[in-house]
Parts: sequence; structure tokens; C-alpha cells
Amino acid sequence: MDTGHLNKHISGQFNEELENVRSQILAMGGLVEQQLMDVLAAARDKDNDLAHEVINNDVKVNNFEMEIDQECTRIIAKRQPTASDLRLMMTIVKTITDLERIGDLAESIAKALLRNDSKAPDVVKFNLEAMGEQIVKMLREVLDAFARMDVKAAWKVHLHDKKIDSLHEGIVRQSLTYMMGDSRSIPEMLDLMSISRSLERVGDHCTNIAEYVVYNVTGKDIRHTSAADIEAIIDDQ
Amino acid sequence: MDTGHLNKHISGQFNEELENVRSQILAMGGLVEQQLMDVLAAARDKDNDLAHEVINNDVKVNNFEMEIDQECTRIIAKRQPTASDLRLMMTIVKTITDLERIGDLAESIAKALLRNDSKAPDVVKFNLEAMGEQIVKMLREVLDAFARMDVKAAWKVHLHDKKIDSLHEGIVRQSLTYMMGDSRSIPEMLDLMSISRSLERVGDHCTNIAEYVVYNVTGKDIRHTSAADIEAIIDDQ
Repeated sequence: MDTGHLNKHISGQFNEELENVRSQILAMGGLVEQQLMDVLAAARDKDNDLAHEVINNDVKVNNFEMEIDQECTRIIAKRQPTASDLRLMMTIVKTITDLERIGDLAESIAKALLRNDSKAPDVVKFNLEAMGEQIVKMLREVLDAFARMDVKAAWKVHLHDKKIDSLHEGIVRQSLTYMMGDSRSIPEMLDLMSISRSLERVGDHCTNIAEYVVYNVTGKDIRHTSAADIEAIIDDQ
Repeated sequence: MDTGHLNKHISGQFNEELENVRSQILAMGGLVEQQLMDVLAAARDKDNDLAHEVINNDVKVNNFEMEIDQECTRIIAKRQPTASDLRLMMTIVKTITDLERIGDLAESIAKALLRNDSKAPDVVKFNLEAMGEQIVKMLREVLDAFARMDVKAAWKVHLHDKKIDSLHEGIVRQSLTYMMGDSRSIPEMLDLMSISRSLERVGDHCTNIAEYVVYNVTGKDIRHTSAADIEAIIDDQ
């Protein structure tokens, strides 16, 4: 029996399954990115229909998560991958959790928009829009780094998170000033702060995904590691 | 060769490894529970030293997460578990992520306490304390359900989360009243609201762990499933 051929065949099937999961996760990423862009457009254009659409579409994100999760467990059980193949499966299982949470955050922003009657000062709204643009860029970059398994690009995303935290901090301070100046603005400002916080948490999830990409490629778990140590790991690539 | 004996031996080693991971995760759960109790005690007694201790101890929680994660990947690669053994490994990998996030939330509550000069009205503080007690109870119950892999207990924790959401909602409304009445109270009230939100998110993570317990025992992924459907699954046990 030509076991060489058989092994190649099995490995070929495995590759096909991996490729299939990989394209599913990229489709999930694309959907989550669309949800985030839609909710930001809904905020900008005061488009309540679009906000409702984002809420309704969250179930699609959830279904992606459950399907990919199940498929990964099935592949691990059937193919019993080791080393880098197993690492990739674990990376995918973790990544979809973060993508699903980003979907939840887009949904909770949509809900905050529907509560909000949008009389907020332009300056706060502009800052929130600018933060939203940064976040979409960050998500796009981390999905791209994931697709190409590019550690350097992933690390750039990781560094970006500090900027997002500062933008959030700025919006909180600004909102606080308006709240202190006019107590009638408090409920609305709280909603804007909650939107800003949700965007900041999207940034955290992008950072997590960036860490998984580095783990997948280098085999090193860089969570809770200093920036200098991480850079040494990445420079080794 | 007595392969039966060999298999038994391998399976015995595997059981030992599983038991080891299981006790590690329970130790991690115990540490996270302690962190949560400490930060609530720090809030109650205005004990800044204890708040600092919680912040310093977070690294221990992070280390647990990384060690258990690595150990699970090692076991999957070496033992190539299938069916319920694999499900248990995936359950553990997911559970430690949620435990680590609960640790982060305890840390962020500690930071909010250090910012806060505690002139909040007693009624808000009492409500926050009551919510904290509920959350510690919820975490303890879900860790217990995890230790015994008890789906019915896990589902009770799941139902508990609605109560936590209502308590949070109540604290937000109450804080809002104080903020509207006296704008000088705004910064402090925002900190209290942020503590309440962190506690609410601890509840969400407990709910996630409860869902993993149900998945592990029944093989059914109950995330994003209606309460009626989940109850039918659990009644089948």
C-alpha cells in the first residue's frame, strides 16, 4: 500500500479543512467589520433603521462563532493536529471569541444610539467619529494581519491601542465638562461615554487578536509581557 | 506486548494530567474569588493598602492563565483526546479566559477605588455592597458548578445574571439622580457607576463559565440559545 500517498491525501484533506475554517473566520471578520462600520454610519447619519439592522444582524455573528467553534473541535478530534497546526486551531478558537464580543459591542452601541436623542455638542460627536474611524482601521489591520499571519503588522495594531485609550480618555474628560456645566446634558453624555467605552473595548479585542497572531507564528504567548520583550521576540522573526 | 495494560497506563497518566489541570483551574478560581472579595473589602473599609494588594496580585492570575493554557495545548498535542476529553480541554481553555477577565475587573475596581475619595451617599454605597455580595456568591456558585460539572447548578447561575443586571440598572439610575442634583458629585458618581459596571461584567463572565459547564456535560453549545430551549436540554440530563 502506498502509505506515502495516503498520508499526503489525509494531509491534503486536512489542509482543505483548515483552509475552509480560515475562510470562514475571514468571512466572520468581514461581517463584524461591516457591523462596526454600519453602527458608526448610523451614529453619523442619525439612521435608526441602520441601528436596528445592526441589532438584527448580531445573530449572524453569533452563528459564525458557534459554527467555527464546532468545526475546530471536530477537526482537532478527527485530525489530531500537533505543533503549529494545533496552535492554529487554538488561535482560531480564541480569535472568534473576540470577534463575537466585538459584534456584541457594535450591537450595544446601536442600542445606545436608539436611546440617544443626539443633541450632543458637535465637538464631542466629532471626536467620537474620529475614534470610530481609528477603531475600524485597527480592526481592518488586525484582520489583515491575521489573514497573512503577519507578526509585524499584528504588533503595529498592538501599539495602536494606546492611542485609542487616549482618545477615549479625552472624550470622557470632555463629556465630564459638559455634564458639570449643564446637568440636563448628563443622560445623553453618559450614553456618549458608553459608546466611547464600547469602542475602546473593541480596541482591546483587536489587541487580543494581535496577540494570538504573534502566538500562532512564534509559539510565544505574549499576553502580559512587556513591550521590550515582545519586540525582541518579533525582531527574531 | 500487553497493549491493554499500556493503554490503561497511558490513560492513567492522562487522567492524572487532567486532574492536575482541573486542580490548577480550581486554584485559579480560588485566587480570583479572593481578589474579588478583597477589592470589595477594600471598598467597604476604605482600605487603600488592600486595593494596592489586589492590583499587585493580578499578575498571579495572569500567570495561572498562561500556564494552564500552555498545559492544555500540551495535553491535546500529546494525548490527542477526542469526544468528552477534548470537550473538557476546550471548556478549560475558555473558562480560564473568563477567569482572567474577572481578575482584570477586580483590578480595575481597585484602581477606581484609589481614584475615588468616597464621599458617595450611603444609599449608593450600600447598593453597591449588596451587588458585590451577590457577585461573589455567583462566582462561588459557578466555580462550584464547574468543580462538580453540575449543569443544574450552572443553569441556576445563568438565571442569576438577570438579577445582577437589574441591580446595576438601579445603581445607574440612583447615581444619575445624585449627579443631576449636585454637579460636584459627578466625577465620584462616574467612578461608582464604573465599579457597578465592572461587577455587572463579572456576572457576564460567570454566565459564560456556566455555559461552558453545560457544553462540557451535554455537548450542546447553549450560547445564544433561548431560556426555554436550554431548560429542555438541562431537563434531559
